[in-house]
Amino acid sequence: MRLATIRTTEGTAAVRVEPGGEAVEIGPPDVGALLALPDWATRAAAAEGRRHAPGTLDHAPLVPRPEKIICVGLNYRRHILEMGRELPEHPTLFVKFPSALVGARDEVTLPRASAQVDWEAELAVVIGTAVRHASPDAAHAAIAGYTVLNDVTARDWQYRTTQWLAGKTFEATTPLGPELVTADEVPAGAGLEITCSVNDEVVQRDSTAELVFDPVTLVAYLSRIVTLRPGDVIATGTPGGVGHARKPPRYLADGDVLVTRVEGVGECRNVCRAEKL
Amino acid sequence: MRLATIRTTEGTAAVRVEPGGEAVEIGPPDVGALLALPDWATRAAAAEGRRHAPGTLDHAPLVPRPEKIICVGLNYRRHILEMGRELPEHPTLFVKFPSALVGARDEVTLPRASAQVDWEAELAVVIGTAVRHASPDAAHAAIAGYTVLNDVTARDWQYRTTQWLAGKTFEATTPLGPELVTADEVPAGAGLEITCSVNDEVVQRDSTAELVFDPVTLVAYLSRIVTLRPGDVIATGTPGGVGHARKPPRYLADGDVLVTRVEGVGECRNVCRAEKL
Repeated sequence: MRLATIRTTEGTAAVRVEPGGEAVEIGPPDVGALLALPDWATRAAAAEGRRHAPGTLDHAPLVPRPEKIICVGLNYRRHILEMGRELPEHPTLFVKFPSALVGARDEVTLPRASAQVDWEAELAVVIGTAVRHASPDAAHAAIAGYTVLNDVTARDWQYRTTQWLAGKTFEATTPLGPELVTADEVPAGAGLEITCSVNDEVVQRDSTAELVFDPVTLVAYLSRIVTLRPGDVIATGTPGGVGHARKPPRYLADGDVLVTRVEGVGECRNVCRAEKL
Repeated sequence: MRLATIRTTEGTAAVRVEPGGEAVEIGPPDVGALLALPDWATRAAAAEGRRHAPGTLDHAPLVPRPEKIICVGLNYRRHILEMGRELPEHPTLFVKFPSALVGARDEVTLPRASAQVDWEAELAVVIGTAVRHASPDAAHAAIAGYTVLNDVTARDWQYRTTQWLAGKTFEATTPLGPELVTADEVPAGAGLEITCSVNDEVVQRDSTAELVFDPVTLVAYLSRIVTLRPGDVIATGTPGGVGHARKPPRYLADGDVLVTRVEGVGECRNVCRAEKL
């Protein structure tokens, strides 16, 4: 099943997206509010609300206000090894605030304060059940499904100090969506192709089979620290090919078209726009 | 004016605390909800709701669910210089999630996953007006007031990777309160004594005059990245004297009494308790 949050004339709405692309309203105002209901899956499957024709959907961020957006750094094996580094023992964790999010077709804002805005295509996990101190089975069961995120990063701000937050959470920089694909439709351990393109040039391409810490491992690990809650988002890390590591480096510019894709999960397509002064 | 969030038989309540310690309910369920009202200051000053006798108050976290808790590292001048480091050009920023918070008299949880839980006494700023790209004047006006926070940290988890999040946000570890002292009662640039005691032994003592980045500078800086919103909390950093830097190192143990105090602002007094298995 595929779920999305769309903008309608009456605000946002959680919808089920049918195989043909038609969307059916479920009731709650967004996928975050839907996931907070214990019977979200049966409710979403049974919904017969207002319908929206294929091709007319205006996607809001899939979960507009997650309680937590936890991001993972250094998590693609091939990329770590080719950089001559050792595989990490523990996941490197940082966050974004919800105000960083934009929808799958929205503009990405290039902050006026930064001259080095870079891309990071990622598979994202969305939590469907509250979980703490989770066993692998409980962690697996807590995953509602998967979506696409681009962890757009202001490199100049990321590296101002040892802590990355400042470069990670500028407003309206981070596409999330367009759809949540429920976990039952994404085979566990599947190697899904992940790509990032800028103006139709592929700049990142790898497989989620290369993840050092897979989604279930990440959920179990994080649940030792905090209670993960419905709607929480875990961005699982990005493969090699970011602009900052190129020689010469390359950054996003006004008008660039940023396409972030995970095989079978979805595609974000965002035009980059310089923040207005 | 002094404001607090207390637990009552009907849930939590935002209160004005009178000079004698009596508390008067204002209406909103907590100080975060109060600050979201544009006329919060006049409303709080005029409130004549239910009264609670001095000494009977059960403090919830001052703002139970801030949208953002932004913490600053390396911000006390004397401590940085005595460590042989240069003063930083930019604030080092990281976060805690709201689930880390406890009230000013609640137990602090020592997570079962950590053997190195340490103290960090801090002056905290609470935002009262939404602000983005703030001038110094606008940043000053955006500060509702000040409170006390202890950035309790699991050192073993903080230093597992380069990013500190994992050690900073274990649940129920971080006292916040007991009161918000409005900015008009805290003279700008005042050097306030800040102390941390463990079982009546003073382990940290410094002055907020030693802050490299003062509250107004921090608000202006952060507002270049994100919109600060009413109820957001900025923890301004801790002075020297943390347990991890002692030889031998010293960490919090079950039963320890942790007292965090900022002169004229308030005092948190929390008993540390090992997380139950």
